[in-house]
Amino acid sequence: VAEGDKARLTALFEPMHAADIADLLEQVEPDERRQLVLLAGSLIDGEVLSEINEDIREEVIETLTSEQLADAMRELESDDVVDIIEDLDEDRQEAVLDALDMVDRIAVEQALSYPEYSAGRLMQREVVIAPEHWTVGDTIDHLRGQDDLPEQFYHVILVDPRHRPVSYVTLGRIMSSPRTTPLASITEESFRKFEVDEYEGDVAYAFNQYHLISAPVTDADGRLVGVITIDDAMAVLDEEHEEDVFRLAGVGDESLSNSTFEIVRRRFPWLGVNLLTAILASVVISLFEDVLSAVVALAVLMPIVASMGGNAGTQSMTVAVRALATRDLTGSNAWRVVRREAMAGLLNGCLFAVVMAFVGSIWFGEPLIGVVIAVAMVVNLLVAGLSGVLVPLTLERFGIDPALASGTFVTTVTDVVGFFAFLGLASLVLL
Amino acid sequence: VAEGDKARLTALFEPMHAADIADLLEQVEPDERRQLVLLAGSLIDGEVLSEINEDIREEVIETLTSEQLADAMRELESDDVVDIIEDLDEDRQEAVLDALDMVDRIAVEQALSYPEYSAGRLMQREVVIAPEHWTVGDTIDHLRGQDDLPEQFYHVILVDPRHRPVSYVTLGRIMSSPRTTPLASITEESFRKFEVDEYEGDVAYAFNQYHLISAPVTDADGRLVGVITIDDAMAVLDEEHEEDVFRLAGVGDESLSNSTFEIVRRRFPWLGVNLLTAILASVVISLFEDVLSAVVALAVLMPIVASMGGNAGTQSMTVAVRALATRDLTGSNAWRVVRREAMAGLLNGCLFAVVMAFVGSIWFGEPLIGVVIAVAMVVNLLVAGLSGVLVPLTLERFGIDPALASGTFVTTVTDVVGFFAFLGLASLVLL
Repeated sequence: VAEGDKARLTALFEPMHAADIADLLEQVEPDERRQLVLLAGSLIDGEVLSEINEDIREEVIETLTSEQLADAMRELESDDVVDIIEDLDEDRQEAVLDALDMVDRIAVEQALSYPEYSAGRLMQREVVIAPEHWTVGDTIDHLRGQDDLPEQFYHVILVDPRHRPVSYVTLGRIMSSPRTTPLASITEESFRKFEVDEYEGDVAYAFNQYHLISAPVTDADGRLVGVITIDDAMAVLDEEHEEDVFRLAGVGDESLSNSTFEIVRRRFPWLGVNLLTAILASVVISLFEDVLSAVVALAVLMPIVASMGGNAGTQSMTVAVRALATRDLTGSNAWRVVRREAMAGLLNGCLFAVVMAFVGSIWFGEPLIGVVIAVAMVVNLLVAGLSGVLVPLTLERFGIDPALASGTFVTTVTDVVGFFAFLGLASLVLL
Repeated sequence: VAEGDKARLTALFEPMHAADIADLLEQVEPDERRQLVLLAGSLIDGEVLSEINEDIREEVIETLTSEQLADAMRELESDDVVDIIEDLDEDRQEAVLDALDMVDRIAVEQALSYPEYSAGRLMQREVVIAPEHWTVGDTIDHLRGQDDLPEQFYHVILVDPRHRPVSYVTLGRIMSSPRTTPLASITEESFRKFEVDEYEGDVAYAFNQYHLISAPVTDADGRLVGVITIDDAMAVLDEEHEEDVFRLAGVGDESLSNSTFEIVRRRFPWLGVNLLTAILASVVISLFEDVLSAVVALAVLMPIVASMGGNAGTQSMTVAVRALATRDLTGSNAWRVVRREAMAGLLNGCLFAVVMAFVGSIWFGEPLIGVVIAVAMVVNLLVAGLSGVLVPLTLERFGIDPALASGTFVTTVTDVVGFFAFLGLASLVLL
């Protein structure tokens, strides 16, 4: 498709949504992407840039001329410009900032002064406000007079004389009320505001928990500086989820458009940690070389005990990590959840112990092997259930993201306990 | 707190958001919950019921009197009533339906006739519409005359004479335009509509991808039957994520409020499948009993090869499953991603092969053991990378949810290949 035919490309891109053009650019090979961008030029507008994955955004921006970039930036709201600019190198940031009008430039520089992942970075500066004493009629007349209203807005924010947000009114309410109605009499109960340096994950949680559509952001003195809308909160929620899933699996912050070397570099450390824990488990096994060389059946069966423990541990851990993320697991029910996981581990352990007692006895014709694996199974599944919930709770208490480190700890515990229980018991019974 | 003091409970619940009251009810012990609900009575309003987890919602509803339930239902929009009612038993559904007004009852029964997890279940019937030829002034006058407008609405939907939605106008646009402006001249480009039987996951994806705020839903004839708003889409996205995370970890559809027996029942099947695959791996090991009894060091080292393969496989699988869910991995880039994962697996395999060659040789004073584990490591990490992406792609092709089954397949492959490569090679070299 991308062999020089500008007219056909225009015809192709014209009806597409910016998000879909961005997806297309993400999915093609790097060379093709470069050619596409060169050819498409001004078809790559601000919307497309703000939809595109940050890993390849830099590459796309480098391919654009500075005029194309400036045009693209000028059509965006301040929060989208910030989102694009924050991932660029210093000198490229400078180039983008130069392309902006003075007013926008100041707004963007201000936003960049807030910490990364804060409400300040997420908000847009364009707000629609009204003094507390206005009526519906005042507001409508005022809005009709404005010509630079934000593209999307859902509330009119009421501010006091010191520019502090006190409440808001939905546009629907304004439109369905008589002109003489005071705004103060039709405000929404759902009103919530955020401080400029609040963590974006907490903001997204509040949007989801309280069904917010938009919410004002205030500076340290409580003055209105911007507004966050639900689509930004939804995007943050989506990113947080991805981060959790990836961290649980020991994958860093990566995307499909990363190169082979980048993903090797990002996954290597996780595999390195896993190697250390695997060696630790091997050291435990090596303590029992005597019984292993005497009864080779043990070497055959021991991975089963470890594998079942690892799986059961991962099950409870995933539930616990997710519940911590959604704030369903708190100090007030932690004890009940720990007790429940311990009971469930014990119960599942007993069920699978019966199964393995038969399998082990029949396979190797030695009932004692069945007994050993059955007992080890009960012990390991109990420990798996307990560590699956205690490890994330402990990490959370020490301020470490449970999604990041729980997996390694839990499987280390279940491997070590599994091998130790199985081989240790075997030494006592079979030697 | 919950020892009979109704006044204090009222004082406590009054300022709380419904979502927080629901969380509180979820976190207490079942007996306490019952007492709380009995005491709180009418404080448990419709909002609280619709926020509460479905697993304990039934329990709470049973504790309420039928009048309290009826009061609670009457204040909700139709989509929330549907959401509550769809998880109840038949006769309890009947009781709730009886509590509704005739009009609402018909609306709810209609919604229940759509398939589960469809746009029809998600939408609310309350819509704000205008004929295509109206002006801004007509619309404002019309809205002022209405007294049963939905609690939240963001667009006025334009419909043709056959009641088919053709576009929409944001309230912000209406308010900032002169009264004589025709609605048709200020419609939004972002307009998208959904059919009543579309899968809710697809709807949520479109909301997130195209930054929709609300979207009309049509029946098979293209007529407007309801509207979906972004907060419902956000809730669906959240549920889908939870489902993916849980399925990847082999946890069914469970929550913290489930009892021990319920979670044992839900986790047992996954552990059972894992047991079968673990036994399969043991069968592979048992093929090499000769070499294992000759060289006990192999039994010590073999879990390392399997564990590294399992981890590397889980890494690529998680990235692939997530990319399939967000539709970033498609037919057009599948081949490139497979190649990339294979290369990354090979590269990481070589790096860890060098490490293990040293560890193996030094630990057991036998260079050949180092060579064997190094080669097995390369083979297994290459296979892990490949299977991590090919397994989810294949499952997706056959219409099976990749999150559901990939984990088991991938670790089976890496266990079997890991043990086979390591012990097979050892038989050739060391015996």
